[in-house]
Amino acid sequence: MMKHCVLAFSGGLDTSYCVLKLRDEGYRVTTYYVHSGAADPEAEAKIAARAEELGADDHITEDASEELWSVIVVPFLAGGARRQGRYPVLCADRSIIAKRGVALADRVGADVIAHGCTGMGNDQVRFETELRAFSERPILAPIRDIQDKENVRAYEEEYLRSRGFDVPERASLFSVNENLLGATLSGGAIDRWEVPSEEARVFTGGADELAPGEKEKLTVRFEKGVPVALLSDGEAVSTSGPEIMRLLNEKAGRYGIGYDIYTGDTLVGLKGRIVFEAPALAVLEEAHTSLCEAVSSRAQNGFRRKVGEAWCDLIYDGFTADALRDDLEAYLASSRARTTGEVDVELRAGAAQAVAVRTDNIPELKGAVYAQKAAWSGGAAQGFTELFGQATVLHARAGSSDG
Amino acid sequence: MMKHCVLAFSGGLDTSYCVLKLRDEGYRVTTYYVHSGAADPEAEAKIAARAEELGADDHITEDASEELWSVIVVPFLAGGARRQGRYPVLCADRSIIAKRGVALADRVGADVIAHGCTGMGNDQVRFETELRAFSERPILAPIRDIQDKENVRAYEEEYLRSRGFDVPERASLFSVNENLLGATLSGGAIDRWEVPSEEARVFTGGADELAPGEKEKLTVRFEKGVPVALLSDGEAVSTSGPEIMRLLNEKAGRYGIGYDIYTGDTLVGLKGRIVFEAPALAVLEEAHTSLCEAVSSRAQNGFRRKVGEAWCDLIYDGFTADALRDDLEAYLASSRARTTGEVDVELRAGAAQAVAVRTDNIPELKGAVYAQKAAWSGGAAQGFTELFGQATVLHARAGSSDG
Amino acid sequence: MMKHCVLAFSGGLDTSYCVLKLRDEGYRVTTYYVHSGAADPEAEAKIAARAEELGADDHITEDASEELWSVIVVPFLAGGARRQGRYPVLCADRSIIAKRGVALADRVGADVIAHGCTGMGNDQVRFETELRAFSERPILAPIRDIQDKENVRAYEEEYLRSRGFDVPERASLFSVNENLLGATLSGGAIDRWEVPSEEARVFTGGADELAPGEKEKLTVRFEKGVPVALLSDGEAVSTSGPEIMRLLNEKAGRYGIGYDIYTGDTLVGLKGRIVFEAPALAVLEEAHTSLCEAVSSRAQNGFRRKVGEAWCDLIYDGFTADALRDDLEAYLASSRARTTGEVDVELRAGAAQAVAVRTDNIPELKGAVYAQKAAWSGGAAQGFTELFGQATVLHARAGSSDG
Amino acid sequence: MMKHCVLAFSGGLDTSYCVLKLRDEGYRVTTYYVHSGAADPEAEAKIAARAEELGADDHITEDASEELWSVIVVPFLAGGARRQGRYPVLCADRSIIAKRGVALADRVGADVIAHGCTGMGNDQVRFETELRAFSERPILAPIRDIQDKENVRAYEEEYLRSRGFDVPERASLFSVNENLLGATLSGGAIDRWEVPSEEARVFTGGADELAPGEKEKLTVRFEKGVPVALLSDGEAVSTSGPEIMRLLNEKAGRYGIGYDIYTGDTLVGLKGRIVFEAPALAVLEEAHTSLCEAVSSRAQNGFRRKVGEAWCDLIYDGFTADALRDDLEAYLASSRARTTGEVDVELRAGAAQAVAVRTDNIPELKGAVYAQKAAWSGGAAQGFTELFGQATVLHARAGSSDG
Repeated sequence: MMKHCVLAFSGGLDTSYCVLKLRDEGYRVTTYYVHSGAADPEAEAKIAARAEELGADDHITEDASEELWSVIVVPFLAGGARRQGRYPVLCADRSIIAKRGVALADRVGADVIAHGCTGMGNDQVRFETELRAFSERPILAPIRDIQDKENVRAYEEEYLRSRGFDVPERASLFSVNENLLGATLSGGAIDRWEVPSEEARVFTGGADELAPGEKEKLTVRFEKGVPVALLSDGEAVSTSGPEIMRLLNEKAGRYGIGYDIYTGDTLVGLKGRIVFEAPALAVLEEAHTSLCEAVSSRAQNGFRRKVGEAWCDLIYDGFTADALRDDLEAYLASSRARTTGEVDVELRAGAAQAVAVRTDNIPELKGAVYAQKAAWSGGAAQGFTELFGQATVLHARAGSSDG
Repeated sequence: MMKHCVLAFSGGLDTSYCVLKLRDEGYRVTTYYVHSGAADPEAEAKIAARAEELGADDHITEDASEELWSVIVVPFLAGGARRQGRYPVLCADRSIIAKRGVALADRVGADVIAHGCTGMGNDQVRFETELRAFSERPILAPIRDIQDKENVRAYEEEYLRSRGFDVPERASLFSVNENLLGATLSGGAIDRWEVPSEEARVFTGGADELAPGEKEKLTVRFEKGVPVALLSDGEAVSTSGPEIMRLLNEKAGRYGIGYDIYTGDTLVGLKGRIVFEAPALAVLEEAHTSLCEAVSSRAQNGFRRKVGEAWCDLIYDGFTADALRDDLEAYLASSRARTTGEVDVELRAGAAQAVAVRTDNIPELKGAVYAQKAAWSGGAAQGFTELFGQATVLHARAGSSDG
Repeated sequence: MMKHCVLAFSGGLDTSYCVLKLRDEGYRVTTYYVHSGAADPEAEAKIAARAEELGADDHITEDASEELWSVIVVPFLAGGARRQGRYPVLCADRSIIAKRGVALADRVGADVIAHGCTGMGNDQVRFETELRAFSERPILAPIRDIQDKENVRAYEEEYLRSRGFDVPERASLFSVNENLLGATLSGGAIDRWEVPSEEARVFTGGADELAPGEKEKLTVRFEKGVPVALLSDGEAVSTSGPEIMRLLNEKAGRYGIGYDIYTGDTLVGLKGRIVFEAPALAVLEEAHTSLCEAVSSRAQNGFRRKVGEAWCDLIYDGFTADALRDDLEAYLASSRARTTGEVDVELRAGAAQAVAVRTDNIPELKGAVYAQKAAWSGGAAQGFTELFGQATVLHARAGSSDG
Repeated sequence: MMKHCVLAFSGGLDTSYCVLKLRDEGYRVTTYYVHSGAADPEAEAKIAARAEELGADDHITEDASEELWSVIVVPFLAGGARRQGRYPVLCADRSIIAKRGVALADRVGADVIAHGCTGMGNDQVRFETELRAFSERPILAPIRDIQDKENVRAYEEEYLRSRGFDVPERASLFSVNENLLGATLSGGAIDRWEVPSEEARVFTGGADELAPGEKEKLTVRFEKGVPVALLSDGEAVSTSGPEIMRLLNEKAGRYGIGYDIYTGDTLVGLKGRIVFEAPALAVLEEAHTSLCEAVSSRAQNGFRRKVGEAWCDLIYDGFTADALRDDLEAYLASSRARTTGEVDVELRAGAAQAVAVRTDNIPELKGAVYAQKAAWSGGAAQGFTELFGQATVLHARAGSSDG
């Protein structure tokens, strides 16, 4: 009997080759496409048609925006950290695509799962670790299998043409990956440590056309750390997480917010330079961090980013199925208990700035204002000052002889 | 015999009161003023004159810019972190002022050291811990001593007037502290979690007047992590650290870069909200981090910010004399061994972006480009992928029964 | 009307003085005594009688063993860490005593709360931070108030005698604090960095009388990280947490297990040297850690002790009411999901050693035994080895020129 | 021309097979053996003879004890941490053996380097990462190449016998690896989570024969964190690092000190259970930690183990050539500046206990003894207590409404 294979399919050259190759090897092929930005029925129909044309026996389209919102955006904001302080793990959709592949394979009774990752990057690890964690099915990686060819792209093109399929022209110098979290651009001149072309932008291309001093104020309402509404002039613009992301990617993108260049230390040991744009995340991070600064305890503000960093590392490394993730997320969920309130964020060219915070949860001392009015005596302050630094003082004095 | 007191003196109301009060208590008073921005002979002369007018027996002016550059800016950049991810420890001049007070007391043979800090903030801790670490002299804090008065400001003003001295009008709604590192603004509406006035700006007030799309490219040259030159169009504009800071505070400030609002968890337990501007640090951090991303090892990039965070916490907490600082700085000095090269930074409204890196120290694999060309086989990649995630996979599978 | 004061009372000199002093100042005094070891009716009656004799209006005895077990022992084991790697926070009863004082004050409608801590140690901080977190009542510290006397002890004794009360002879050279967690001994020669007397032992004094090679095997059964039974020869000896603690303190104490000497960096900045004994905790830690090593994921085993260390620091520093504690404990509770199984621990002179682990939750790979049998190919291993270390290798090679 | 291969050779079955196999493939083979315990001329001669018998063209014996002492033991003690809190990286000799292989290859002009590691464990990673970091020569792993055989051991034995060589009987159920740092035992019943045989001991087998209460006091003298002398009754027994290790492994081993069982999370993702003995390290760690507790600052004692943990992880993971190691060791070297003094350690059955510390570097406050005598006022203590916990208190109170 024919073996049945499930394949994540984007319609590009690599996964088109995979469909053909798997068919040639005798597999029945079910392709699926997962998007998480706004639904784009035309693009989705095109992908489905291509899958059919290439001989896929079935094709499925899935929307993962709600999932990306709740399992990635929410803990990411709570953690308050980025990979190596810069990269907001825009790659986090990989594990979700993989997990949906397992679910699909379960539903259709597939025998194997395939993906179109090469053996040259991080994504193979993210895909396969998640796939293997939830399924003992064999994994096929047809592109990685031909990695030793002199010119992989040419080989794939020839393979398609020889079977009568046309090969789309390369659309751009950059490879673009876009999902709810933002856009990642790689390839081209980007990886040569030179100035990326101004064309390497998805959301932020229009910032140069802003009027001098142009700005805009938005409000984010949080309930226990979750953005539950985006408001403009006091009116709720949206109360849906994914829609807030889409709106903010557009609105803040217009101001050039969230554009950055990152050189990552990849899992295969090479340096990998990318351009990314995460306008919505930049705005929500700024708002959420300002709320945490105002309502969390000093000790909480001192520790949560350590948890956030570990969480980002897990996601980046593809250890998305690890039990540590549950533990870190239990911490992060607890840490959100009081981050309820509204934050006004001002968008200006190049920067989102939280300018005002309204919440009932700011710890205050009746009668005291920091640095202006104390509710304790000068003697108490003297005693605190003396004893708080005493460990440092005594050690410094003890050492003065041998310094 | 008359006791001799050394007093850090800024010419403001608090330290003016201190001079009088100390004189009234029978001390011979030597005042000193430490600046770290550009020398401003007029302002310095005014402070000296005021000290003399108030009866100080001697007055000293010191320039601490070189020291702030080498003992603060350089390790700060190497650490790559900010206090709680946001605040670039602009308060770091406090310990230097204190330490110079001890040196001055040693030179003039003073018996006691005084400072004008209140008992309501962090600075008393930073001052006194450093003072006590290097001197066993008694410490006087005349302002803290009157903190229990109904209205301290009125009390001080009356004290001055009653002795025939005029009291300067309050210049602004904000209290401004400026040094080589940047400017900190506090008080006024800032601490009420509302939108700060646009007037609360020292360097960044002109960003609204930029032309659409206005931008500028500068180059920072690093030798072992130290910025040794600022270049424009390939020409060195400056090779002096303090001057680079002054130039960048002005240049990048014009683009609104480095403005931020921070709510800190202060040492006395209250929330303290400030506006700060650190244009130069923002540019140098961006340039240095991009260089580290390119030349440091993955393991280095994963750890250095933990050291940087600990260093920022030490500085913030006033533990500047702690031996841990030496240990952290030994790490940071070692970590700079290969961060040599040039980084182009583009200044645009609201953001400094490192756009290009030139260095001989990027780790590369002959024949490989990340995600585009491997110098290993597809089989090696498969093996890596399988074993790298195996701990996560086996644990996830083991648990599937009791999930 | 008479003000009403609640006072934690141990029957010793300090708190006896407090009762008298508070009475003299016109307070109605309710004393309370919290124990957490085995109930000792005779000792408790003696304390109650002394309170009455001294004029306390009411006296309450409370048993906090179940609370210490569930809120301290369970998260402590889950965290797998000790303060500074050595001290198992035996001081954790302080916050519980304080919190019970607040509850008692609420019940009896007291106006103020008093404690007998001095101003010389950590306990004042632990007591007062917890008291103030849960009550806005004024706090009295009568012993700290007389700390400036030449000889505090003599002053207290004279105060008691002058009012007709006898003063108990000092029982020992050491001050002993014992609770469910273990015993802490301080004072005497202990704080002079010399060899502590062999008499400074509560549980471990008999180890020298063990027969050569004497040993004993016990089994601890865990359910989701909680010790639910202690077994000997397969028979459950106890299924109550506090009773397991008492039994193990005795049994393991006999083998000299859990004795240690610790020099702590105290909150007031001095070095504080103590002897402590924590036989039960030592056995349970060993068993629990061995179970975690077997069943937790690699990533979990790499992170949980960071959380445990932060938790120990919170407890040690008296920040027991901090919201960070909830967050850390949410992590720790999640981390216990699979630590279910039995661990055999062998007690021998000086050491508890987990020697066998039985659980269904060990992650395994069918057909593979570590270092003996692989279920992957030699080629896969080669690929893993090549790519896993590649970041280090390429960086090392890049640097060889300027080394 | 014949290619020349350098091979690390222990005389066991695996590396014997390697010699033959490499010879059969046409290599000229230079074998080398690195020891780090006491020189054992007889054993070394036997290994050399076996190499010659098998056809090695040359054989070299090297002593790495001084190197293991200075590059491993010294930073290990300074870091104060173990891998996952338990394992003192006894595997650290691997990278040294590898690096010496490169040096030998350089000296003799070898073309390739070979090792006898399997593809089933951690050691292949440690070996190859170090080899590749310092040499671009191809690496051969003949044992890993035959890993897919049904029975590797039988295949190797048959290979030797068929060429006329005898095969030594398997000496033991356990595989033992011994070096200056201690002994590691694996295989047999050890990896089955059952009670290891009492025979699985190298140094600690005799503890059951100790007389009741038998004990012994030794003194370790440290200079800047380095053990420079071992003393007994005030007389220096040894001043050589490696010799101190050998003496302590024997002396403390006799007391059963340093025996432990560890289940590691290995690099290939399996759980790996071992028995290890590190008597000397246990004694030196105890002594050094006690000295640090006494002389380091509170902040230093709070941070150094984080550095130590990262260092242990680097060594364990085989990233021994990483630049992060230099950075961590720069920290650790700095941290040792004041750890000078003598520590008395009492050896008893099962435990080494530091009982006394003599040093000039303990930070002290004239007139104060922790918890017994303050050199500050009761009011100062009250002020400290109030402000130190204030962040926690205000946050707890702010939250009381929504708790």
